[in-house]
Amino acid sequence: MSQPYDRVFNFSAGPCTLPVEVLEEAKADLLNYKSTGMSVMEMSHRSKPFEKILAETEADLRSLLNIPENYKVLFLQGGASLQFSMIPLNYLGAGQSADYIVTGAWGEKALEAANLVGTTNVVYDGKASNFNEAPSFDSFKLNPDAAYVHFTSNETIHGVEFLTDPSTTAPLICDMSSDILSRPVAISNYALIYAGAQKNMGPAGATVVIVRDDLLAKGPAKMHPILDYKLHAKNTSMYNTPPCWTIYMCGLVYKHLLNTGGVIASQERNTANANTIYKAIDASNGFYKGHAVGGSRSIMNVTFTLPSDELTSTFVKEAETHQLDGLKGHRSVGGIRASIYNAFPIEGCQVLAGFMTEFAAKNG
Amino acid sequence: MSQPYDRVFNFSAGPCTLPVEVLEEAKADLLNYKSTGMSVMEMSHRSKPFEKILAETEADLRSLLNIPENYKVLFLQGGASLQFSMIPLNYLGAGQSADYIVTGAWGEKALEAANLVGTTNVVYDGKASNFNEAPSFDSFKLNPDAAYVHFTSNETIHGVEFLTDPSTTAPLICDMSSDILSRPVAISNYALIYAGAQKNMGPAGATVVIVRDDLLAKGPAKMHPILDYKLHAKNTSMYNTPPCWTIYMCGLVYKHLLNTGGVIASQERNTANANTIYKAIDASNGFYKGHAVGGSRSIMNVTFTLPSDELTSTFVKEAETHQLDGLKGHRSVGGIRASIYNAFPIEGCQVLAGFMTEFAAKNG
Repeated sequence: MSQPYDRVFNFSAGPCTLPVEVLEEAKADLLNYKSTGMSVMEMSHRSKPFEKILAETEADLRSLLNIPENYKVLFLQGGASLQFSMIPLNYLGAGQSADYIVTGAWGEKALEAANLVGTTNVVYDGKASNFNEAPSFDSFKLNPDAAYVHFTSNETIHGVEFLTDPSTTAPLICDMSSDILSRPVAISNYALIYAGAQKNMGPAGATVVIVRDDLLAKGPAKMHPILDYKLHAKNTSMYNTPPCWTIYMCGLVYKHLLNTGGVIASQERNTANANTIYKAIDASNGFYKGHAVGGSRSIMNVTFTLPSDELTSTFVKEAETHQLDGLKGHRSVGGIRASIYNAFPIEGCQVLAGFMTEFAAKNG
Repeated sequence: MSQPYDRVFNFSAGPCTLPVEVLEEAKADLLNYKSTGMSVMEMSHRSKPFEKILAETEADLRSLLNIPENYKVLFLQGGASLQFSMIPLNYLGAGQSADYIVTGAWGEKALEAANLVGTTNVVYDGKASNFNEAPSFDSFKLNPDAAYVHFTSNETIHGVEFLTDPSTTAPLICDMSSDILSRPVAISNYALIYAGAQKNMGPAGATVVIVRDDLLAKGPAKMHPILDYKLHAKNTSMYNTPPCWTIYMCGLVYKHLLNTGGVIASQERNTANANTIYKAIDASNGFYKGHAVGGSRSIMNVTFTLPSDELTSTFVKEAETHQLDGLKGHRSVGGIRASIYNAFPIEGCQVLAGFMTEFAAKNG
């Protein structure tokens, strides 16, 4: 199946596929954005055209996720990794404890940073079963007096995902880096949501933070300016020079998503995409083994193993001849990882599923 | 004077003008980078094509600045503002003191962050004369036992610049955000150099750090991973997802600079550009007043005032009709700021100088 511009099916875990229409628009405006006489890459962040880009980008994200008025939306730098530290530095005070739910490698890193700041309570840790589950929040013994509860809605390496929004007594904080905008979200359940741009929103280099005013107000009086949510909010993401081009690209993606049915259509497409691959796993009579248990299967990262490392290598190599790129799984799970974020086309999932069936028949 | 693609002369203080040839190349490869079947914006940072981009980008920067082997080159996020905090967090230990030289607003911010960490010694503060000078280091009483000496080689708001490399006993740290690559630099004089990308290197969103191994080794044992220079160095800027597109754009700019004479030619062009405008100031019989004193005049940001705020407003408005964009000065200096970074064309300086002469004759 030939793709426009000879593009491949890019199963990368992130950065990853962006909508072709968005790339075409960025290309068209690259040397002179809407008669401003310059590229967005060259534009002062204090200029009217960029202020308009930032305001529209925020408004479109608010519209897509139905974000209430009492939340601020910030566009920062440093990826989820900087958030891992900023969250406890801002909200885990002396004498407090924070609940951490660890369903994969990213949750572990968030916990590691929090442990450098204060007291944590590990409510769940799926390490013993190599992170193959996102259990129901009903099964957790949460501390109602916790400074906050932290979890990772989708773990990209292990392919386990919380597919609905939990509700907690303590302020709920979620790393949605790899599944934001993949489905509707009950924003009001959360005190803070953060997400690196490079899966469902745009290129790497921006981090979206959606934070409720009451949590924002709890920030400490004395904080490094660049690590201070309050200061970023007060300056509407312009305390320092923001990653303008990445924000612009996110804005184009948001508009594209609004024009193609928003997050409800997005969820339908993503579910259909994932099911196409999960069906090929389940129909293989055990040749392919899904890593995640039923009910925790991610619609963003489909992870499965083959009978041997040798077959896995052959699978990855042969897949490349079908323009199926980036399928090699992370070493901690092994096997195959098909990352199929929002912009991934159904045709790619169909080609992969067809290839999987053929490969199993030939090697099973 | 008509510019290619109807582009304007962009005097923005940053982000700012990039070379047209670089933008053209980025545009050509936007949907399918060198037959990889994807955009650089969509590429896994762990993929071979991106690893090659990163390695070449680093090698080209090393070549341009003649960086010795005992220095690491890092591409981080968060701008100079994050460096303001990372430097003292990593290198200003308990019982130590750091020397700060404050020649403008950016030096003040660096000092502010250091004061949150430990003891500082303000060796020079130009506030009383509204930061119109970059005095000789010979006039400073430096502490030879300081943890480090920090200064800002060019202050964008005030337009004052250290045009040669100082030499100090204590480790020398420099914020070169706004003049890196504008001239040859004696790298060996420095323990650490940092620079946001968005003036002389590329779009906003990446920060280059050049750090000597002996300073790197002094980093503390316990540090937030994302704030830990040692960890970034160990992972060759890949501890977390780097700002891939911005790094790619910096790489294109480096190659362009290598192909156009490197930093020696760059210094010649920048000096000629700046002198074109300074001459118009000095020939105006006092109509225009340069902010920086002689010897401290920046070749990156030319700052000057007019006889009144009203004339300044008129100047900015009329300039726009000549395709001269972004000339309004920062409120703390007032007047005009012409930011003319590496990629700024001499034609723009000539048009501005011509306009200045006409404007002074008409309104003087």
